[in-house]
Amino acid sequence: MNDPKFKFPDKASYKFVTDYFSSKGVEADDIASITYNIQRSYIPDLTLEEVQKAVIDVLHKREVLNNAMVGIVLDQFAADHQLPEPLQSIIEKDSGVFGVDELLAEGGISGIYGKIATTNFGYLDKEKHGILKKLDTTTDGSVNTFLDDIIAAVAAAAGAKIAHAHA
Amino acid sequence: MNDPKFKFPDKASYKFVTDYFSSKGVEADDIASITYNIQRSYIPDLTLEEVQKAVIDVLHKREVLNNAMVGIVLDQFAADHQLPEPLQSIIEKDSGVFGVDELLAEGGISGIYGKIATTNFGYLDKEKHGILKKLDTTTDGSVNTFLDDIIAAVAAAAGAKIAHAHA
Amino acid sequence: MNDPKFKFPDKASYKFVTDYFSSKGVEADDIASITYNIQRSYIPDLTLEEVQKAVIDVLHKREVLNNAMVGIVLDQFAADHQLPEPLQSIIEKDSGVFGVDELLAEGGISGIYGKIATTNFGYLDKEKHGILKKLDTTTDGSVNTFLDDIIAAVAAAAGAKIAHAHA
Amino acid sequence: MNDPKFKFPDKASYKFVTDYFSSKGVEADDIASITYNIQRSYIPDLTLEEVQKAVIDVLHKREVLNNAMVGIVLDQFAADHQLPEPLQSIIEKDSGVFGVDELLAEGGISGIYGKIATTNFGYLDKEKHGILKKLDTTTDGSVNTFLDDIIAAVAAAAGAKIAHAHA
Ligand SMILES: [Ca+2]
Ligand SMILES: [Ca+2]
Ligand SMILES: [Ca+2]
Ligand SMILES: [Ca+2]
Repeated sequence: MNDPKFKFPDKASYKFVTDYFSSKGVEADDIASITYNIQRSYIPDLTLEEVQKAVIDVLHKREVLNNAMVGIVLDQFAADHQLPEPLQSIIEKDSGVFGVDELLAEGGISGIYGKIATTNFGYLDKEKHGILKKLDTTTDGSVNTFLDDIIAAVAAAAGAKIAHAHA
Repeated sequence: MNDPKFKFPDKASYKFVTDYFSSKGVEADDIASITYNIQRSYIPDLTLEEVQKAVIDVLHKREVLNNAMVGIVLDQFAADHQLPEPLQSIIEKDSGVFGVDELLAEGGISGIYGKIATTNFGYLDKEKHGILKKLDTTTDGSVNTFLDDIIAAVAAAAGAKIAHAHA
Repeated sequence: MNDPKFKFPDKASYKFVTDYFSSKGVEADDIASITYNIQRSYIPDLTLEEVQKAVIDVLHKREVLNNAMVGIVLDQFAADHQLPEPLQSIIEKDSGVFGVDELLAEGGISGIYGKIATTNFGYLDKEKHGILKKLDTTTDGSVNTFLDDIIAAVAAAAGAKIAHAHA
Repeated sequence: MNDPKFKFPDKASYKFVTDYFSSKGVEADDIASITYNIQRSYIPDLTLEEVQKAVIDVLHKREVLNNAMVGIVLDQFAADHQLPEPLQSIIEKDSGVFGVDELLAEGGISGIYGKIATTNFGYLDKEKHGILKKLDTTTDGSVNTFLDDIIAAVAAAAGAKIAHAHA
């Protein structure tokens, strides 16, 4: 049941998400590099600093953190073989028709930055840039089924934020 | 990494989801009752049988099952106090600004049946009908943060299916 | 073709939308009343002033204005019998399975305020409150197929903004 | 006001949409080529026939047609300079931060085929393939602000349909 007195733990959420990113070798600047690459052809005077600021802003949004946390926890349980079947196999094998990873990322993260962000996300999700390529091809037994989409969605959202600011 | 040879386990997913529903006292007919109640004023000759068939159809859709499974697993881990903080508290307290439960339900279940389904879902999510009211007010220590939205979304999707068939 | 030098006319958009609302007898305060009614049971110390500010904020968001303008123009062309068939009849008759009115409203307006807003929208769209009821039942030959959803979506978005601020 | 006796004109909608596509030099087979190109690397034994059938199926879905019709009508009014300002300029210049074209396409067309379709759409929208490239660069004074996204969304939806059938 809903507890109306519960104070939302935004700071703890931010720490949880960014600590996990770091543990996977992903820093805010890696995400900013992706965003910079997709936006600089549209905005010639774009600076890396502006992009870094946009990424940090996106990473402080409550709905972004909520969806990122859920995806991270599912990756972790899958890596530890703790999910019930058939979900364990579906997430472990990163099945292309699962779709929940893309939903949390697109619907829960980039989607709240509007439709440019959704389009950016779709592009990044197929054309893995920078750190995304590395995450997608790790062979160390870790599970990044949700993580790659979360990172792509944060980069996509930051890109949309910048596009709107320059329009 | 993605394994292209993985065969998607749709039957096991269906069994996982409907077994969990049953364990919570929710049968397909309970969902059909909700759908029947929201659609019968628009379609005077609507039969309960047609509604039941629509609910069963929705429950066989792969994307519906995938999203339902993820929500169920999160409710289960929260009930067993196995989630890391702050996610454990957020889901256990069913915070109204979490939003991931509504995303899996609306975006992942009702949304693929079009915008009538989204509207139906929003209505049902606020005006808890039938079994939904019961789930929302259990005080037995179980966690139904995701379950109530999943049930509402399946009922909403079945309603949209019927509305389109009668248009 | 895209013209990269085009400056986005946000002020003209705001004027276009709010002038149209006024011409239909809808002021920002009417929207705020709807929002106030759906949020005050959750937030006992909510003031009408805070709600009015949230509505005004939502009405200044570019993506909100873009979607509102498109819906308004379609209502206007339908009222003037200028749309080609079968779209003219579909919009004029406000068919329940059209869905584009709910898409612009939910996907384009409330959706960018997260999933609470989507749920609020679905509820308001069925349970017409205040000015929404009036718009839905006008018999003066005007077409409000898109307008009622746009107003509901703005009210829903403002409600979500307030819920997040108080969480 | 809603007229409950209105019979939905699906056949007329299909004819309206496909006639417009033809007038712009876009046939179902051109869309199928795009879909074939994005799916064949995942499904080695994919035939062009299967893809053509999927495109035709998508083009018969009511919600797809509704959204396509609205986008087409807006392109037509913009080409004829009949939209009120500032919407006329925004659509005529195909502003990158408008977003309503991507919403109708992603939310209203590809979105109802699940999240794979959304991802496909985002990719196609950036990497214009085949007929999409041609539409995006016409200099004959016609407006294709909505059309390119509609075509991309239909191709993306057909791709998702095929991916699910082969999983
Ligand atoms: Ca993934
Ligand atoms: Ca819930
Ligand atoms: Ca309407
Ligand atoms: Ca476009």
